[in-house]
Amino acid sequence: MTQILIIGAGRSATSLIQYMLEKSQEKQWHIRIADIDTALAARHLKGYPQSEALSFDVRNPEACKKEVSTADIVLSLLPAHLHLEVALACVHEGKTLITASYVSEEMQKLDEEAQKKGVLLLNEMGLDPGIDHMSAKKAIDELRQTKSKITAFKSYTGGLIAPEYDNNPWHYKFTWNPRNVVLAGQGTAKFLQNGMYKYVPYQRVFTTLESIHITNIEGEYEAYPNRDSLKYRESYGLEDIPTILRGTIRKKGFPAAWQALIQLGLTDDSFELENTYTMTYREFVNSFLKYNIKDPVELKVARFLNVALDSDCMQKLQWLGLFENKEIGLSRATPAQILQKILEDKWALAEGDKDMILMQHLLKYQQAEKSFLMTSTMVVFGDSNGNTAMAKTVGLPMAIAAELWLEGKIKAKGVKIPIEAEIYEPVLKRLAQVGIQFDEKITQISTDLLYE
Amino acid sequence: MTQILIIGAGRSATSLIQYMLEKSQEKQWHIRIADIDTALAARHLKGYPQSEALSFDVRNPEACKKEVSTADIVLSLLPAHLHLEVALACVHEGKTLITASYVSEEMQKLDEEAQKKGVLLLNEMGLDPGIDHMSAKKAIDELRQTKSKITAFKSYTGGLIAPEYDNNPWHYKFTWNPRNVVLAGQGTAKFLQNGMYKYVPYQRVFTTLESIHITNIEGEYEAYPNRDSLKYRESYGLEDIPTILRGTIRKKGFPAAWQALIQLGLTDDSFELENTYTMTYREFVNSFLKYNIKDPVELKVARFLNVALDSDCMQKLQWLGLFENKEIGLSRATPAQILQKILEDKWALAEGDKDMILMQHLLKYQQAEKSFLMTSTMVVFGDSNGNTAMAKTVGLPMAIAAELWLEGKIKAKGVKIPIEAEIYEPVLKRLAQVGIQFDEKITQISTDLLYE
Repeated sequence: MTQILIIGAGRSATSLIQYMLEKSQEKQWHIRIADIDTALAARHLKGYPQSEALSFDVRNPEACKKEVSTADIVLSLLPAHLHLEVALACVHEGKTLITASYVSEEMQKLDEEAQKKGVLLLNEMGLDPGIDHMSAKKAIDELRQTKSKITAFKSYTGGLIAPEYDNNPWHYKFTWNPRNVVLAGQGTAKFLQNGMYKYVPYQRVFTTLESIHITNIEGEYEAYPNRDSLKYRESYGLEDIPTILRGTIRKKGFPAAWQALIQLGLTDDSFELENTYTMTYREFVNSFLKYNIKDPVELKVARFLNVALDSDCMQKLQWLGLFENKEIGLSRATPAQILQKILEDKWALAEGDKDMILMQHLLKYQQAEKSFLMTSTMVVFGDSNGNTAMAKTVGLPMAIAAELWLEGKIKAKGVKIPIEAEIYEPVLKRLAQVGIQFDEKITQISTDLLYE
Repeated sequence: MTQILIIGAGRSATSLIQYMLEKSQEKQWHIRIADIDTALAARHLKGYPQSEALSFDVRNPEACKKEVSTADIVLSLLPAHLHLEVALACVHEGKTLITASYVSEEMQKLDEEAQKKGVLLLNEMGLDPGIDHMSAKKAIDELRQTKSKITAFKSYTGGLIAPEYDNNPWHYKFTWNPRNVVLAGQGTAKFLQNGMYKYVPYQRVFTTLESIHITNIEGEYEAYPNRDSLKYRESYGLEDIPTILRGTIRKKGFPAAWQALIQLGLTDDSFELENTYTMTYREFVNSFLKYNIKDPVELKVARFLNVALDSDCMQKLQWLGLFENKEIGLSRATPAQILQKILEDKWALAEGDKDMILMQHLLKYQQAEKSFLMTSTMVVFGDSNGNTAMAKTVGLPMAIAAELWLEGKIKAKGVKIPIEAEIYEPVLKRLAQVGIQFDEKITQISTDLLYE
């Protein structure tokens, strides 16, 4: 029987584990699910016979090697900083590893030894990074085969609340790590537009927007640029491309209101405020505004932002409870930590809420002296079995890659990301079978629009 | 003969060394001047008989102890991060140390052992920190003796070009470390206004201004808040004060134009730009602006800043050469490094230029049911003997403290800053004798103005 070890059994592991368990009898897989919390791991078993829950500390190299040694393949959904110990054990024991995390420098350093030992360490095999790489690279490789000249590549992703469950003025709920949402965009965004490098400091990232149109999905969307859009320029084979941009999708109006929080200083995670335990939300906001006891805080904020008191932006801030005389109750907190607490109250998913993942690639290219725009769009909704769109799009690519590797269809060795046809072709095909697919539309455009 | 060791012989050491050498014969002092560069140390000797230049590596603990062991007192003008090794040697050898640097955490940890050994480690004994502490604490202590209730303490310092030599539209030249000027204000400014904590993020620090009036000095000045105005609240004995603010003085208009550089992103030191060697200044600026090949960069900047093309701000940017097609010539540089290079060309002191130090404390207080504003102002100019105002105000407090200690007039032990009368009284008295003094003005004010 094939031995499969899955490490990390949090909520985002649901779809991955379910996919593996459902195939376990037919495929003769024995599945061990490990977590620091055995109960969490056991919750996923649901009576499947060829499965087992266990607990071990991945930070202990010996424990890691012991558990890895009995597996044929290891899938890790641990937080990124815990992958290295698992990867070291995999290389040592000659076992394949699949993760959904970015390749860290330390991970990259294992490439040579992994290749020598004939071990595959397949990373960035989730949604973003993961499905973005596979779908983008497939489109790029196909265009290259038709001798097309690609002049622009733009790629956008968003984890959002499904429109049916969107019932707040921000049109947003936390479907992923709240801390990452609060700190999103910090640093400088970097992209390439018609051959010119463009840099956008944090205080302007959420005002540097593109409109996003998704067929069949109601409402308007906007995208702000990600930190480093150039990161995969070489991996994608786009060294000479004039325009390359990666961005994050939000409902229209969200970025402008988020910008207000940034301007005020509420997303700052670099220092702790005084007296945060007894300070109220209203005082918190006021501490970032000029001293003036005559005007109410709302008026001061509206003036500072140069918007009307009843503007959309002010309504969003008001709805968050930022002007309430409610005590924060956190000791020694940074502005970002306080804001996160406020948002977690307001943006929590309600029972039955379903999420939605949007991904869209836009490619402009010239082919046989004609110019085209390819729009490739993926929409995935959460379903009612506890499989959120996030869990499906992060976990199923990993599960399918494991299945393909066990079938002998993936032969790559060393530290890899899924940008080669051997991996992306069969994975995308099986993802489509489980409803994760791209809708591709090609329109002819005027040649002027290739560069704009 | 008394043995004095001075470590660090850069330009800012000039006044300190000159003061000590001039007194060396009368006082029977033998003065050793150490620098990593012996020639630099030797340049200061100027034929004084009881003096010697030497070189040793302060990062070598044994060398440090050896040189310290033969001294009665050590004065260090090294960069702050190099003080610790010297302080350790001083404690080990039982010698007194004076520096002009902030007390680091590591320095503070030496307090107990220094006290046990009867050693004084006197830090923050320059201008800012240094003269600011002494003059502020003197005023505060005097007011306390008259049973005054202090409601506001504001303290401003600026290192500027003397008005006579001010011949550029920024009204600024580098009289101190250019890198520190470029990075000034990064982080969040924090102060207290009428009992309310106020936080100002970097992107608003240079727009949070107060007007500064200096009698007898032409022109208008402005001050922006320093990073942490609360740092000395306890040391100054102002635990319950409603308003406390420390700020940096610049000529009026400078902060608004600097704000333009911040908004553009040019002061960012957190990432390296692409192709900075062959990139031109104009392209550098353009890389922070929206893509648009129709409009000239100047117009894009003016629109972005929402100012007229011929505004004061645009004239300042133009004068810096930011729109010139001149290659940067730096490899792998951050925006801040490129900006520093541009400014170093433009803001360099010319032969014969003299600098100016401004310091002003404003104290509001209530005394016998009347309300007052005390304005205490210091103005120091560079002189023609290579003694810049900066070198005088940083070095002379150290020199005088050393002289007083050698006379047995300072008896404190342990890690200290000059906030006790034993130190500030005699030091301020002798500083006045060399022309470094405060002009104090007290005016009665309406009680409403105590809190505003």
